This record gives sequence, structure tokens and C-alpha cells, in this order.
Amino acid sequence: MEALDGNLLIAQSGGPTAVINASLTGVISEALNYDCIEEIYGSCNGIVGVLKEDLVDLAEELQQTMQKLRLTPGAALGTCRFKLGKGQDYERILQVFEPHDIRHFFYIGGNDSQDTANKIAAFAQEKGYPIRVIGIPKTIDNDLLHTDHCPGYGSVIKYIATTIREIAADNASMGHHDLVSIIEVMGRDTGWIAAGASLAKRRLHPEEAPHLICLPETPFVAASFLKAIQQVLKRQRFCLVVTAEGLLDPDGNYVATESSSTDQFGHMQLGGVGDYLKRLVETNLGIKTHSTKLGLAQRAAAHCSSVTDNGAAFLCGQAAVKAAVSGETRKMVALSRNEAGSYESETKLVPLEEVANGIRKVPKEWLHEDGFSVNHLFYKYALPLIQGEAHPPHEGGLPLFAQLKKARVEKKLPPYEGI
Amino acid sequence: MEALDGNLLIAQSGGPTAVINASLTGVISEALNYDCIEEIYGSCNGIVGVLKEDLVDLAEELQQTMQKLRLTPGAALGTCRFKLGKGQDYERILQVFEPHDIRHFFYIGGNDSQDTANKIAAFAQEKGYPIRVIGIPKTIDNDLLHTDHCPGYGSVIKYIATTIREIAADNASMGHHDLVSIIEVMGRDTGWIAAGASLAKRRLHPEEAPHLICLPETPFVAASFLKAIQQVLKRQRFCLVVTAEGLLDPDGNYVATESSSTDQFGHMQLGGVGDYLKRLVETNLGIKTHSTKLGLAQRAAAHCSSVTDNGAAFLCGQAAVKAAVSGETRKMVALSRNEAGSYESETKLVPLEEVANGIRKVPKEWLHEDGFSVNHLFYKYALPLIQGEAHPPHEGGLPLFAQLKKARVEKKLPPYEGI
Repeated sequence: MEALDGNLLIAQSGGPTAVINASLTGVISEALNYDCIEEIYGSCNGIVGVLKEDLVDLAEELQQTMQKLRLTPGAALGTCRFKLGKGQDYERILQVFEPHDIRHFFYIGGNDSQDTANKIAAFAQEKGYPIRVIGIPKTIDNDLLHTDHCPGYGSVIKYIATTIREIAADNASMGHHDLVSIIEVMGRDTGWIAAGASLAKRRLHPEEAPHLICLPETPFVAASFLKAIQQVLKRQRFCLVVTAEGLLDPDGNYVATESSSTDQFGHMQLGGVGDYLKRLVETNLGIKTHSTKLGLAQRAAAHCSSVTDNGAAFLCGQAAVKAAVSGETRKMVALSRNEAGSYESETKLVPLEEVANGIRKVPKEWLHEDGFSVNHLFYKYALPLIQGEAHPPHEGGLPLFAQLKKARVEKKLPPYEGI
Repeated sequence: MEALDGNLLIAQSGGPTAVINASLTGVISEALNYDCIEEIYGSCNGIVGVLKEDLVDLAEELQQTMQKLRLTPGAALGTCRFKLGKGQDYERILQVFEPHDIRHFFYIGGNDSQDTANKIAAFAQEKGYPIRVIGIPKTIDNDLLHTDHCPGYGSVIKYIATTIREIAADNASMGHHDLVSIIEVMGRDTGWIAAGASLAKRRLHPEEAPHLICLPETPFVAASFLKAIQQVLKRQRFCLVVTAEGLLDPDGNYVATESSSTDQFGHMQLGGVGDYLKRLVETNLGIKTHSTKLGLAQRAAAHCSSVTDNGAAFLCGQAAVKAAVSGETRKMVALSRNEAGSYESETKLVPLEEVANGIRKVPKEWLHEDGFSVNHLFYKYALPLIQGEAHPPHEGGLPLFAQLKKARVEKKLPPYEGI
């Protein structure tokens, strides 16, 4: 299919990752290679910025900002968690696209965002507005369907496995009493992140921390958990537990919820599982227990991010532009792995509708039958994703991150009343 | 005073830091320079290892282990929180020292440990047992008297300021709703660690995160706190709060305690302040609030430790040996700063009894009158301590830490009944 002349718009959505801006950088640097792409615009705060016609001209950013951007956490363009309403929102989006001649639209996000991208593409097609829409995967949760892994995941588990190895060294030195540590990590629906903590164990050292991991994929039974802790403490001087935030009881209810608030997509805002497990251990076993909740630190930890992950994120951005220019639309860039010889990420395209709203859980075959660990298939899968240490530039002892100038593109429409 | 021929014993005590093993390395490497020091022994788990006669021969460790040790978190010899009982414990300590010919004893620890070292030295003196006892400062809390700062502090605040800068980039991108984040850090009695988070602000950018810091030095008043959050949210898109774990109300009671357990020194085990503040904000202001509790991760974060801090820790170890060999005893090595030209740590000696059990709070003149921030005097003090990025060796994407072989020294006494 021939090239489509016009401007490019890129937006970021959902929870940021340590490498979400690497995908943005990949899009921008690749877009510069094509004559059919004139202006490179960014939308502020995801699709909300499109509705508000709040666009910025990315060509006005300095080269040195772009260099730093690749290792900057947070979504540099701003992000959102916004569910498009009925037809009115879609009409507005096309009304904004048209005067700005947007012909290539890229949406970096998780499954909700891929769903949004798919619906925008479908609406544009229905209305006969020529545009190419490509989704770029992003989520620390690693729960998108049809991709080997998601950019952002390698970095979050590198940070968590590093942290677990460090806490284990600390715990191991604490001496003459039993000690239990609970580390709560993200993971609302899946245990990918908690499972990644297992990489902290050295090869051939199954006795090392983390001793127990609790995943949403395995129903949580308090009695089994307490028994497992006691068994670890028979063999080890301490027991380090990593738990996902979204543990479910055998009836499928969350075992702990911090508050009953829900986001716009109806997801419950979780948290507090770590403290729940701490109280469980202290009350039932009488063992002093530490709790740590890595919270937002884990998804923003650019200082401990993975070079491999950053590379994959950048590659997805580049591949999205290549796909759009070559005529593809309503697709998401996905990652596959070349297993021959050394590990290497490659990209492919999958239809957006196959990705939208689906969730990939940790495969049952990768979970150890004890319910509290993963087996060698998980290690084989995850270990390549954490390779290489990214070092953001530092000044005065601290990382120096990019801040976009965000030169506003002149508005051509009246404000939108629908938001 | 002339040299005292005999063996050296080193022990580590209290909560570990990211650089506690740098002090251990400093002692070992310096000790190799003196003929008067024959064997270099380590005690397992602090003073408990002395009571149990559980000693290891550090000369039997590999050189490559020593290299890694300097950047290994946790206390490599093991640590303890143990309060010596009455005379019986002190008798036992001398009974262990004598057959092993211990003439130089070094104790790396905080104020409780310096008190222990002081009492051992006093008892030995009283009994006419020739020994030189030198304390080596160590605490992330930075609360020891008579030293400019404590090894361990620079690294914990480098990690925390890095994390705050990263979380701020994440928060800043979250868009169209008010957002409050609470990050709970350590600090039972003092706000040194929470204050250190302020370094995340770039020079001349007082509007940057952290927007509010809550310290034990300033009585906590919920109404003032909530008002301060509202004021930040008038000017900024998000409000990032860093709180020490040990906040006190105007009557001097802890505002939140996670459990009522106390350690052997009568210190309450705190925690849960972050969640308390989160509930306070959500209930009273109706603003969705994230909480993060860095917990044990902060004091073990060797991957983000400060080269300056590591150097000071190593220097303290070296200085302790020099002091003992030159005839000093019942002293602690302290750090002073050479302000002339570029910052540089220097060591001096202070009597152990002047350090033991005292606590240094953040000076009132360094606290901003708003009660929720520190002024330029704190910045001037703390900024030099976080300079330089230490990079522990990595293998397979994760830091590789030293594990001591711990070749046991043959016991010469019957087991101790007193422990």
C-alpha cells in the first residue's frame, strides 16, 4: 500500500513504566526518516489531550532532551486513565485529527489503551477518514495477549529482583531470631511481577530468597501460607515473601483491599496485601515481620532499568512507524523472541481487536506445584529480559531526567464541552 | 604509646547499611599493614558471637570476595540487637578474648553499639586486661553525636532522593486529577532520612517534589498537614509527601504505630505512618492517595549507593585500626569535613562515652518555619554526601554480592550458659 501523506500524532496512556519514553523516542526518531510524515505531534495526557486539542510540536524539542528522554521515567507527554464515552467522543477525535491533518496515530499503552486505539480506528474507517492507527505495547504488568512480553516488564522485574537480592543480604545478617519479610509488589490480576522476583535466586540455589511468592493465579489459603512459612524457617534463618497486590481467595474475592475506590475502567484500587500478610504471620505465628511496599517506586525506577527492555521499547516505537508507513492499521506491535543462539527481540503485528481487553496470566505449567514458586520455564522466559544495566546521566549525585518544552500546537477548534 | 601485640577482632551490630561492609573492608585492609596484629578475626552476629565464641578467620577469605564485599549490603559477619546483661556477660567476653589473644576490638554500630563497646572497654580496664577498643560509626539514621555524619546515611538518602525524583516524574505525568503520594521512609527518632529526600529538588526549583516532608522534630498536627496539602495542590498538579516513620503528636506520642512490639533496647517497632496519612487525606480531602513504604529496601540499596559514603565508611575502618595501633582506646572514629575548597571527609576521635546512647536531631535552624521542609543549610550539609554512583559488579543482570566463607576459629571454651 502506498504512503499516506500527513502528520503524526503520538500519545501515552495508562500507568507509566521506566521505558515508556523509549518507545516515544523510537517513534520520533523513526518518523524523521519518512517524507510522507510532515509534523510530529504529541498529545498531552493521552486521548484526553486529543479531546482537548492539547497538542505539542515534538520537532521543537532539543536533541539533548531527546537523548535524556530515552532513560526518563514517567510518561513525558503525560498520560491518562480515561474511557471514551459514546459516539460524541469519537466524533470529536476526528474533528481534531482533520484540521491538524493527523494521518498516523500511535497509542502507547496497555490493554485498555489498545481497546481505545482499536475503537478510534474502527470509527475512522466507518467515517471514511484515512488514518493509520498502530498500538505500541506498554505495561509493567506484562499481561497483554499475543506478545512474548511487554516493554516495561523487564525493567520492573530487574529492579525488584535487585531489591530482593539486597533485602535478602540484609535479612541474612540479622542473626539469632526468626525473621519474616513481606515485600508487596504490583500486579492486580496477574503474578508476572511477583514471579519476576524469583530471578533474585542464583542458579542452582533454590534455597535463596525469595522463599515464597504469592500470585493471583494461585488461590490464597491462609493455613497453607502459614505452614509454608514454618517450613521455610525450619531450613532457613529467615523467610522472604513476595506478594502481588491482587491475591484472591478460593472464592475469587480479593483477600485484602485498602479502599473500595475503583478507577474509570472499574478496576479496584488495591493495596495493603503486604500489611495483611504481616498481621497474619504476627498474629498466628508470633514472629516479628517486616513489610515493604515498593509502590510507585517500582514502575519509575529508571536508575535500575534493563538495557534489553529499553531496547525492546525503542524497537516497538520504530516498528510502529514502519508498519504505519507501509500501510498497516488497526494493529499492535508485538514482540517475539528469536531463540536461535542468543536471545533477541523481534517485532510482529497483531490485530488490535485480538489484544484489546484480554489478559494473559502466568501459564499454569510455569507454576511450581507447591503454589509458592515458579519453575525453570519461567526463569528461561524472564532472565533474558533483565540483561544490561541502564545508567541514566547523573548530575550532583542524582539522575537527570528530560522535561519536554511542550511547544503547544495552535488550536483550531472551540473547546470540547464533553470533557 | 607502644604497639600492643596480639589478634584483632571485628564485629558488626544493629541495622545494616549499604556500606557497613566497606568499614569492615577498611579495617581488614589496614590491619594487614601492622606487624603487631597477627590474626584478623570476625565475630558472628556482633557481640553475640563473642559470647558464643563464634569467631571466624578473615584471613581465609579470598581476595576476590574482599573486592565484592565493599559493595555488598547487609552485615557480612552478621549483626545483632543484643543488650549485654549484668557482670556475667562482661566476664564471659574477657574469658573469650583471653585465649584468643584479642588485643584490638572494633565494633561497627550505632549508639547502642557504641555504648556496648564503651562498657566492654571499661570492664577490661577495671580487670587490667590490656585491649584497645575503638568504635566505628554506622547508621542510616545519621543520629550519632559528635560526628559530622554517619557512614550509611549518604547512601540511604541518595537512594531515596533518586526514588523521589523518579516517582515525581511518574506523578507529574498522571494528568487530569489531583494526586497525592505518601512515601514512608525510616527514621524512628529523627528526620535525617526524610529530610534527605529534599535533595530530589533541583537547585532553584523549590516547587519540585518532595512538596512536604514530615519529621519527628516537628510535632504533627493533622489540620496543618491537610491544609498544607491543599495549598500545594493549588499550585502543583500533584503533592508528594515524604514522611519519617516516627511522627509525634504535640503531646509527644507516636501518631501511628503498626504494632506494640518493642526491641531489646525498648525501642518501639514503628511503621504504618504512611498508611495512616493516606487514610487521613482520603477521608478528609477525598483525594485518591498512593502509599509507598520503602522499608528494608532503603538501607540495603547497594545498587544506588554513594561513592562518597562508601569512601567515608572505608576511611572510618582504616582510621579505627590506625588509632588502636597508635595506642588509642575507648574512642569512636568520627567524621569531620574539610570545607576548604572541595568537600572531603576527615576523621577524628571522640570518647565513646560521649557518643553512647545520645541522639542528634536535625538542627532547628535547618528546618523551614512552615514545618514541612528544610532550608539551604540542610542542602549544603547533605548534598556532598550523595556524590558518585557506586556500581556493584553484575552478573546475569543482577548485582553479585560477596558471601564470606566464615572459616570458624577453633573454640577453646565450654559453651556459655548465659545466652
